[in-house]
Amino acid sequence: MTDTVQRPSGRRPDELRDVRITRHYTKHAEGSVLVEFGDTKVICTASVLERVPEFLRDRGQGWLTAEYGMLPRATHTRSDREAARGKQTGRTQEIQRLIGRVLRAVFDLEQLGPRTLHIDCDVIQADGGTRTASITGAFVAAHDAVTRLIAAGRIESSPITDYVAAISVGIYDGTPVLDLDYDEDSRCDTDMNVVMTGSGGFVEVQGTAEGSPFSRAEMNALLDLAEQGIGQLIQSQKAALETGRD
Amino acid sequence: MTDTVQRPSGRRPDELRDVRITRHYTKHAEGSVLVEFGDTKVICTASVLERVPEFLRDRGQGWLTAEYGMLPRATHTRSDREAARGKQTGRTQEIQRLIGRVLRAVFDLEQLGPRTLHIDCDVIQADGGTRTASITGAFVAAHDAVTRLIAAGRIESSPITDYVAAISVGIYDGTPVLDLDYDEDSRCDTDMNVVMTGSGGFVEVQGTAEGSPFSRAEMNALLDLAEQGIGQLIQSQKAALETGRD
Amino acid sequence: MTDTVQRPSGRRPDELRDVRITRHYTKHAEGSVLVEFGDTKVICTASVLERVPEFLRDRGQGWLTAEYGMLPRATHTRSDREAARGKQTGRTQEIQRLIGRVLRAVFDLEQLGPRTLHIDCDVIQADGGTRTASITGAFVAAHDAVTRLIAAGRIESSPITDYVAAISVGIYDGTPVLDLDYDEDSRCDTDMNVVMTGSGGFVEVQGTAEGSPFSRAEMNALLDLAEQGIGQLIQSQKAALETGRD
Amino acid sequence: MTDTVQRPSGRRPDELRDVRITRHYTKHAEGSVLVEFGDTKVICTASVLERVPEFLRDRGQGWLTAEYGMLPRATHTRSDREAARGKQTGRTQEIQRLIGRVLRAVFDLEQLGPRTLHIDCDVIQADGGTRTASITGAFVAAHDAVTRLIAAGRIESSPITDYVAAISVGIYDGTPVLDLDYDEDSRCDTDMNVVMTGSGGFVEVQGTAEGSPFSRAEMNALLDLAEQGIGQLIQSQKAALETGRD
Amino acid sequence: MTDTVQRPSGRRPDELRDVRITRHYTKHAEGSVLVEFGDTKVICTASVLERVPEFLRDRGQGWLTAEYGMLPRATHTRSDREAARGKQTGRTQEIQRLIGRVLRAVFDLEQLGPRTLHIDCDVIQADGGTRTASITGAFVAAHDAVTRLIAAGRIESSPITDYVAAISVGIYDGTPVLDLDYDEDSRCDTDMNVVMTGSGGFVEVQGTAEGSPFSRAEMNALLDLAEQGIGQLIQSQKAALETGRD
Amino acid sequence: MTDTVQRPSGRRPDELRDVRITRHYTKHAEGSVLVEFGDTKVICTASVLERVPEFLRDRGQGWLTAEYGMLPRATHTRSDREAARGKQTGRTQEIQRLIGRVLRAVFDLEQLGPRTLHIDCDVIQADGGTRTASITGAFVAAHDAVTRLIAAGRIESSPITDYVAAISVGIYDGTPVLDLDYDEDSRCDTDMNVVMTGSGGFVEVQGTAEGSPFSRAEMNALLDLAEQGIGQLIQSQKAALETGRD
Repeated sequence: MTDTVQRPSGRRPDELRDVRITRHYTKHAEGSVLVEFGDTKVICTASVLERVPEFLRDRGQGWLTAEYGMLPRATHTRSDREAARGKQTGRTQEIQRLIGRVLRAVFDLEQLGPRTLHIDCDVIQADGGTRTASITGAFVAAHDAVTRLIAAGRIESSPITDYVAAISVGIYDGTPVLDLDYDEDSRCDTDMNVVMTGSGGFVEVQGTAEGSPFSRAEMNALLDLAEQGIGQLIQSQKAALETGRD
Repeated sequence: MTDTVQRPSGRRPDELRDVRITRHYTKHAEGSVLVEFGDTKVICTASVLERVPEFLRDRGQGWLTAEYGMLPRATHTRSDREAARGKQTGRTQEIQRLIGRVLRAVFDLEQLGPRTLHIDCDVIQADGGTRTASITGAFVAAHDAVTRLIAAGRIESSPITDYVAAISVGIYDGTPVLDLDYDEDSRCDTDMNVVMTGSGGFVEVQGTAEGSPFSRAEMNALLDLAEQGIGQLIQSQKAALETGRD
Repeated sequence: MTDTVQRPSGRRPDELRDVRITRHYTKHAEGSVLVEFGDTKVICTASVLERVPEFLRDRGQGWLTAEYGMLPRATHTRSDREAARGKQTGRTQEIQRLIGRVLRAVFDLEQLGPRTLHIDCDVIQADGGTRTASITGAFVAAHDAVTRLIAAGRIESSPITDYVAAISVGIYDGTPVLDLDYDEDSRCDTDMNVVMTGSGGFVEVQGTAEGSPFSRAEMNALLDLAEQGIGQLIQSQKAALETGRD
Repeated sequence: MTDTVQRPSGRRPDELRDVRITRHYTKHAEGSVLVEFGDTKVICTASVLERVPEFLRDRGQGWLTAEYGMLPRATHTRSDREAARGKQTGRTQEIQRLIGRVLRAVFDLEQLGPRTLHIDCDVIQADGGTRTASITGAFVAAHDAVTRLIAAGRIESSPITDYVAAISVGIYDGTPVLDLDYDEDSRCDTDMNVVMTGSGGFVEVQGTAEGSPFSRAEMNALLDLAEQGIGQLIQSQKAALETGRD
Repeated sequence: MTDTVQRPSGRRPDELRDVRITRHYTKHAEGSVLVEFGDTKVICTASVLERVPEFLRDRGQGWLTAEYGMLPRATHTRSDREAARGKQTGRTQEIQRLIGRVLRAVFDLEQLGPRTLHIDCDVIQADGGTRTASITGAFVAAHDAVTRLIAAGRIESSPITDYVAAISVGIYDGTPVLDLDYDEDSRCDTDMNVVMTGSGGFVEVQGTAEGSPFSRAEMNALLDLAEQGIGQLIQSQKAALETGRD
Repeated sequence: MTDTVQRPSGRRPDELRDVRITRHYTKHAEGSVLVEFGDTKVICTASVLERVPEFLRDRGQGWLTAEYGMLPRATHTRSDREAARGKQTGRTQEIQRLIGRVLRAVFDLEQLGPRTLHIDCDVIQADGGTRTASITGAFVAAHDAVTRLIAAGRIESSPITDYVAAISVGIYDGTPVLDLDYDEDSRCDTDMNVVMTGSGGFVEVQGTAEGSPFSRAEMNALLDLAEQGIGQLIQSQKAALETGRD
């Protein structure tokens, strides 16, 4: 991998943006996190609801689901408010389905018991990578909600089976780079979102050629970068969870 | 007015919560303010759009409109996400119509020219008074957007004709009190939202008897409190606008 | 108050339009009233439903709710049919929420028992003041429905605790005037809707400065006018209820 | 045809209900009619809009369309308000498509010029036959709107090519009967709506076997009844149009 | 009836298009039929659902309902996809209500027991007569589903009381003709859909004058044609049901 | 790779289902293909619309978009009809966004000129792999539509820059397998959809761990299988395009 690409942010190809994870960000939710990947800022909350969806009624197990939104002026130009338009875009639905799916991959839903963990990821400022920041922050919010359930004696042990975090990688100006910001994302040939667990397994890989198709070699380089970046993100999650009060 | 009522927050009857107005809160909007009335926190942004609604086409004048939303877990228990439900509640529509109407009362729309100032008020944490905080913060965001328009030479002089701010008052445990928080709001007999200009005129008065009807004398006491509180809020707006960069 | 203002209708500043309340207007509803404030005509029906909304299930108490609509050509120019557009406007929702709220203020919902009084106010001709006419007529329709419930032995005594009626007041050409018709409403500086009980308490006050803000003195003059007008409306309600069959 | 069937209303098999057509019923619409078939009461308005739908743009011809609605408590038990449910039922759509289609059959849309006649039929009290009453009343409202267009010099001669009216017929207790009211309609084996012109041509025939299929002989008897009834309705339309002011 | 009219397809006035009924067309449904009336092709499936709609709960009887759709490019030019538009057109709703109603006319819903037969008619290629082909094919699909219920011992005897089929007739170039294709349908003066049972009773007659009104004599000629055509269709249904495996 | 896994279908791990591509399947569309991957059957049509979406107005370039649907009983149990529910599911939106995106990757939209190629993929029978079959068939339908545009002289040369096809791979019972059918799909640990061009580049890779996370080695084995399968699919596309009339 060459170091010579000039990223708009001046970062090295394998360099994450500053990652900040602030727990207990709002006061009502069982888990509430502000996650920042550089200028991308997402409020992730985890709410415990003592009910399950209809299709799980009387099964004894729990559920975890996620919703995603963006404030209308989180972006460079104002987007329509989805609530006013009366429906969520396809992009929003894709992202919220992804967030729910990958968090369920590290949850033992039997162990959670007959309740729902409802994750909300709301982007208050967008600068690329909102879905990867959402996943990374949502894990911490969900973890805090679980800690509270255990402390309250409502579940005996944690249903969380592993860490999970996500990062984007892409080919910018011919070079594989880590953690695309908006400027890069809008000029990338290939854009890939990778979700991995703390033990290094892949939960989701979504790669898209925006311009030319990508080769197997490029894919391998991207996955190498992603593995490294996710390792760092999981360190940030651990650091956040070890700091301050539960 | 008696000082003997025991407010849940320990405040005096005529005491506002801590009011904080943080400008330049997010980076993309022409005006962006985080307004806090105690634990109530609202992000207010003002976006300049170089177009007007259909009903104003070719009139030369501008428009100002507002939308309001709450993050699903801004509240004690999680509310449905309006974008997922596919429609805004009646309450949301009432509030956003109010915000737009009262800001237009201090805007010379001819002077604004053929563009729209689109206000978004998004509650990230709710503890009573979200509509009054929204109005108070939205004014500052709109002011910043106007300052930028003038600096860019897109309008010659400010279309803003006066300050405007809002506060709630109510009768709690028999005593008129200022700036209801959630605990008070849910136990108040009468709840009134008052919107006034910097020069002391009323723009909107909305009083509702939640329990027993209220008397003319009570209404007068409430309006006295509101006048005083709005005076303080407008001082806070001025202080915020005089501080830091434009 | 000056008598010298020239109202479009030729009325004195403190003069109501002709008020007519026709009971038993349609034949199916438990209460059915045609209320006319001059050329404003609203059909108000009260339907008794032997069920309560989900949030009151198993509480033993009843509920009262209201819906409001306008025939598309009730107005000067045709408006879109809300059923065809697929949603109610914000204005419609505001009005129907208001009607329900103020009628509940004079209902003892425990005494009503586990049933719902569903009020429908449908404007067949609009000439200003449709919401105040709706409230004034809806009270009589609700009263008739209650009378029928008592006659049928389904409730023992009336859950109605007081009369309630509503009127608009405004500042027209500098003068406070009572009961705005459409011509006045569209040229008024300030428009206020006031809802009061038979015993003289305020249930709702909603004042809006359409043009210049209004002063405390103007507000007082408007409330004086409203008190007087509502007194007359409640006389009309009483007269209607005492006349003819139940 | 036997006279021995006992109709709930006591009418003879070939007897219409009392038909009343009241013109100028509301004041804003270019044509406004209250039509009553016994206890069925429908407000029919015709609005002239100086525009045409997109698919007719720049064709020079006009359009006529219709919408239909029922007040929620026009019926024995309260129906949901379509505006609140957010969509019109299939039944409503069928009826309004029918009304528009049959009125267009007696309109020369070229002659109407590039404008739309928008018909609204709103049922304020339902007792069977709302669609036939709607068509019969809507014709008169449309006629009044056309008269006004001619008087104003906006069109030279009438685009109306013939009268049109509608009636229901059915087989009640084995006997063909004319103009079903609600009691009959809900117990009929066969229900047929017939629309005819003043010159005796059929515009629409919609017959449905609610119970047993019907025979060719029964259909013929029903059509005989309908022809006679529509003749009387067209007399009523003519009488209404000849009476009073235009 | 004259033979001299020149139909676009070269058919005689009383000649059906080629009718093909292919059973077991798709593999999952309890009944699945591809019905072809010339170039009109509709997939009709019958699904057995072991539940009934809310309004039939605890009545013991069953229900039969139908839905209709067209692939967006089943037609000459592409139509909007109803699922993407977010609602079904009035035409779609009319057709699916018709299909359900006429099939229920030959079903003993008590005998079906507490289950729903859900019919889906999806047009994959349209060339006129999609609703009549749908009814004709749906009957066979429903029959297959019933056969399977009996074979599985879930019902004892068939709830089907008669055959039912449908055809269109119209007046083309002055001549009554049978089974209109698209070219004829779009140029017909009168268009009538007729639904009859195997024993010759009428279930539904829907005739519309697209151009000039039609006379009683024309209606009689059309009904004669329809009777003959439906006789042939029912032969085709019988032949299909007697051929191949159940 | 082991051959010892017992696939429900009896296929070898690297064996596709029978693939059939039938061109000119329906008669109205500019391109119409029935694509079958075993029991999965999808009708893919390509419609040429002589307009572009709003965001491309006056740019000179064209657009390609796709919609996806399933007949309600294409599946084992009946699914709700999206048109009747009033909205498309998140899954449907994801798939149709994918189809459009990957076809655009092999289209030169400048060369297409100011028109839209609208792809519709409608599943008439589902047995796993509906999105990969859709992409593979849609390419052929789009190719036919382009051929027709060239033959008509509406574009000079083909805007298609490469072939594109898609296949699913997954880890079934510990073994990587190619082209999952429904039985395998519902029991797979990992499911990956791969889209590649004729020249061997990746356009999209979407891998999801349904159960345990997958390793880098597993991902490599899956990509190997997918490369081989897509090579075969592109041969099938070529064979179909070389056979029969254009």
